[in-house]
Amino acid sequence: MANSKYAYVRNFELPDPLLPGCYLICRLDGHSFHRFSEEHAFVKPNDERALKLIDHAAKDLMSEYKDIILAFGESDEFSFLLRKSTNLYNRRQAKILTTLTSYFTSCYVFHWPQYFPDTPLRYPPSFDGRIVLYPDERAIRDYFSWRQADTHINNLYNTVFWALVQQGGQTTTEAHATLRGTFSAQKHELLFQRFQVNYNEISARFKKGSVIVRELLNEPEDVTATLELEPVTTRGEETIRAPPKRKEKRKPKTTIEILHCDIIGDEFWQARPHLLAS
Amino acid sequence: MANSKYAYVRNFELPDPLLPGCYLICRLDGHSFHRFSEEHAFVKPNDERALKLIDHAAKDLMSEYKDIILAFGESDEFSFLLRKSTNLYNRRQAKILTTLTSYFTSCYVFHWPQYFPDTPLRYPPSFDGRIVLYPDERAIRDYFSWRQADTHINNLYNTVFWALVQQGGQTTTEAHATLRGTFSAQKHELLFQRFQVNYNEISARFKKGSVIVRELLNEPEDVTATLELEPVTTRGEETIRAPPKRKEKRKPKTTIEILHCDIIGDEFWQARPHLLAS
Amino acid sequence: MANSKYAYVRNFELPDPLLPGCYLICRLDGHSFHRFSEEHAFVKPNDERALKLIDHAAKDLMSEYKDIILAFGESDEFSFLLRKSTNLYNRRQAKILTTLTSYFTSCYVFHWPQYFPDTPLRYPPSFDGRIVLYPDERAIRDYFSWRQADTHINNLYNTVFWALVQQGGQTTTEAHATLRGTFSAQKHELLFQRFQVNYNEISARFKKGSVIVRELLNEPEDVTATLELEPVTTRGEETIRAPPKRKEKRKPKTTIEILHCDIIGDEFWQARPHLLAS
Amino acid sequence: MANSKYAYVRNFELPDPLLPGCYLICRLDGHSFHRFSEEHAFVKPNDERALKLIDHAAKDLMSEYKDIILAFGESDEFSFLLRKSTNLYNRRQAKILTTLTSYFTSCYVFHWPQYFPDTPLRYPPSFDGRIVLYPDERAIRDYFSWRQADTHINNLYNTVFWALVQQGGQTTTEAHATLRGTFSAQKHELLFQRFQVNYNEISARFKKGSVIVRELLNEPEDVTATLELEPVTTRGEETIRAPPKRKEKRKPKTTIEILHCDIIGDEFWQARPHLLAS
Repeated sequence: MANSKYAYVRNFELPDPLLPGCYLICRLDGHSFHRFSEEHAFVKPNDERALKLIDHAAKDLMSEYKDIILAFGESDEFSFLLRKSTNLYNRRQAKILTTLTSYFTSCYVFHWPQYFPDTPLRYPPSFDGRIVLYPDERAIRDYFSWRQADTHINNLYNTVFWALVQQGGQTTTEAHATLRGTFSAQKHELLFQRFQVNYNEISARFKKGSVIVRELLNEPEDVTATLELEPVTTRGEETIRAPPKRKEKRKPKTTIEILHCDIIGDEFWQARPHLLAS
Repeated sequence: MANSKYAYVRNFELPDPLLPGCYLICRLDGHSFHRFSEEHAFVKPNDERALKLIDHAAKDLMSEYKDIILAFGESDEFSFLLRKSTNLYNRRQAKILTTLTSYFTSCYVFHWPQYFPDTPLRYPPSFDGRIVLYPDERAIRDYFSWRQADTHINNLYNTVFWALVQQGGQTTTEAHATLRGTFSAQKHELLFQRFQVNYNEISARFKKGSVIVRELLNEPEDVTATLELEPVTTRGEETIRAPPKRKEKRKPKTTIEILHCDIIGDEFWQARPHLLAS
Repeated sequence: MANSKYAYVRNFELPDPLLPGCYLICRLDGHSFHRFSEEHAFVKPNDERALKLIDHAAKDLMSEYKDIILAFGESDEFSFLLRKSTNLYNRRQAKILTTLTSYFTSCYVFHWPQYFPDTPLRYPPSFDGRIVLYPDERAIRDYFSWRQADTHINNLYNTVFWALVQQGGQTTTEAHATLRGTFSAQKHELLFQRFQVNYNEISARFKKGSVIVRELLNEPEDVTATLELEPVTTRGEETIRAPPKRKEKRKPKTTIEILHCDIIGDEFWQARPHLLAS
Repeated sequence: MANSKYAYVRNFELPDPLLPGCYLICRLDGHSFHRFSEEHAFVKPNDERALKLIDHAAKDLMSEYKDIILAFGESDEFSFLLRKSTNLYNRRQAKILTTLTSYFTSCYVFHWPQYFPDTPLRYPPSFDGRIVLYPDERAIRDYFSWRQADTHINNLYNTVFWALVQQGGQTTTEAHATLRGTFSAQKHELLFQRFQVNYNEISARFKKGSVIVRELLNEPEDVTATLELEPVTTRGEETIRAPPKRKEKRKPKTTIEILHCDIIGDEFWQARPHLLAS
């Protein structure tokens, strides 16, 4: 940048480093997606194309940024966990936050035609984002439990709501009234009695959301001890190993998987101790 | 969001309001655009299609966010001025920053085929962003002077550099060597003597960058006194006036113009006192 | 500090620079001074000794920190204005804030016996503090108007309240009830009718609070143009000029004065243009 | 405060909450204590009166603020550990920081005559402070190890340095030269050979610094499980138990002890699991 007499204005740019030793969670949310889903005729209560598209954007982001080790998505939101020791962009808050938000948005628009071949984008969608610091594993576990519990509650409600509207002939106002004050068990019962739908048989993608995890590939035991993950370059589904740098610890091979499993219980985490390791 | 026992994790989200009474400048920069411009065969030293594309994204952003009253762009960067009294998203920093970054990125990808009909995007481009607070008009003037001086310096250098390479047959290393230590006048002379190029006749778009300004349309004098700008809805080139809300001060009609003019001198600013008014 | 293997813990200390180009106001408030004034038998509604003591501490702070150009105090609080361009401690927030708070507290305890020779301190008093940034002169003017208007309102109330209690024989509960909902004019009237007190004749110190200002001493005109104030060393009332540094602009001589005048109107400020100059 | 038309200036006061779930360390440092110790003729290399005075101020601070569970001091600095879950002043940074700094300063000045009966204060001493967040126990352990290692290194150096000056007749310049590049073992040897001083026999207060810890008093086991410490009111050495509030868990009795022991090893911490418990 020009080293002119005006360059003093850079002094107004203040440092914004994030506290070391904390996990980072970056959560992105669709901006005005209620309208966006209407305008693009998303299927209710869940549009599988839209969900697969946002998963794709999330997976691309994880391929590009190795310090993201886990992501969870539902509807038009996605949360990304960066490992505690990440030094991405020297932990500068605005730089990390905007880079992730921008690349995710770009991937979403870029891949749109692949998932909506017959529905051209009518206008550019956008997302907002924030980074939250969490000091310990307990909070991280509870954060992801919070999002998945939210997925469950929303999806059960929406499933019954849209059944009442689409199959039961209720207006949306009537459907809300029908559901007001009902408990979870009552919603299950209503679904089954009136619409012969067993909620448990609904797609795990809808009930559990999307869990995108950086998995360690099977390797000699001592390798899993090193926490620095391999700098791979991924484009789409294909993963290219970077040539190993000299003098560097050998890093474990990893792969990025999309799952629709429970992450509230212990099983998921116990099987992947590297996620919360420091 | 689920009001579950996990919801306490929201307590880790800290407030981030921006200081009132200051101008906000949001600057976006292309992420790894050196590689991006190579991969998409941008014309050197200036690719008019790419510049018009980024201008379009910037104009869209200003159409969507009325509190942006001025923007300046060059190459793969754009700076947006939000008026001092903006209360966009209650001045929450991350919200403003990510929303602007995301929408701008989305517009860039969305409009790509219009400017590069024969060059499909090979991968999703992205931008990083930051918001800087400036307390007074002097700093705002100097900020924009800083960016436009930078445009001038870069463009003169690049114009001569690529002439040496493309027409003079030098390697890029030789061209850098040729230019090392030369003053502005020498570069002008070199351009003219060896390549018969009069720098002053080069497109203003390249020499001055792009100035996108929210102009007040001519109206009765008392109206220009109110600083709140009209909530218009714009999509592409078309501008639709929103129906006036009741009990609201009549707001001045505005339009968004793309210029390639000097903004270092006083003329531009004196003709538009509303830009820096409080 | 030890350059040991533990020194990495310094990395958790994050930078906290204050935005340049803004005025700083540091406001200190007595901590639990209701109890403190009871325990040390402060005279009600105003204890002149206590007010002179806190003025002394404030003046000492201004003598020690040249970038404080104005202070305003009432009761157990004091606000200090640091000039816009101050570079005290590189504008590090915690450093400035704690140093001012600590020195002010220390001066208060140090000078206590001079103002309360017969009342030993029963326990250590303390103050809390905060720094607020203000981007322009208007906000600074309004800040000081806010504090002086507060002084006026509180002092009028307290003056009548304690007259009702001390001379009128009311309980404090009764006195509050008497005053509930009364306007300013009614309070004046009540004071005059029942207690023959003309509020306007009350000490300006009580009605206006304390204004401590760094005054420029009369000097050739061109000097007042330079805004950097002279690095004097002051202890108590005596002012020692520092020897002039080489190559440095001659700085204006200043003195620190305690006034009890109006600072809401323009007169005070127009007579001292250096206070808000940039 | 006056609810006048000026009250909008409060909008410039921005929130500054500290991240939950992190330990807080508040470190206070004497401001220009090199000069202060000269002016008040502190004994070199260690002035026991000054050390006892600063310990007294630190202990007073812990008596007043129950969430401080540990402190470590050396020379003119003191670090205070607030427990992870503290909600003191709603974790507002400036409020906590200034209140602690101010009260500590006040105690230091207040108790001065008790420790320096024949040396009146010549001017008010002051301290600066900062709060640093630490996310986990490891960092807290390392923080205190860092300070105590620093104490050891400084004290060994100063002990030999002042022996060379006071007993060996060297100038301070010569003494620094003598010590340049020497290792710890050489300093021990030099002390012993030339001055017959066995460093290990030097007072633990000088070698280890001051460790001030809130100890749990022996009580039935179940009580130690509750982490909230008892709201006692302490003034000087006397401790008064507050009357128990209704419906509140019984809190463990605590006492504040000053020790001069090792805190780098595990023993100290293993004996006091409540210090780092969450």
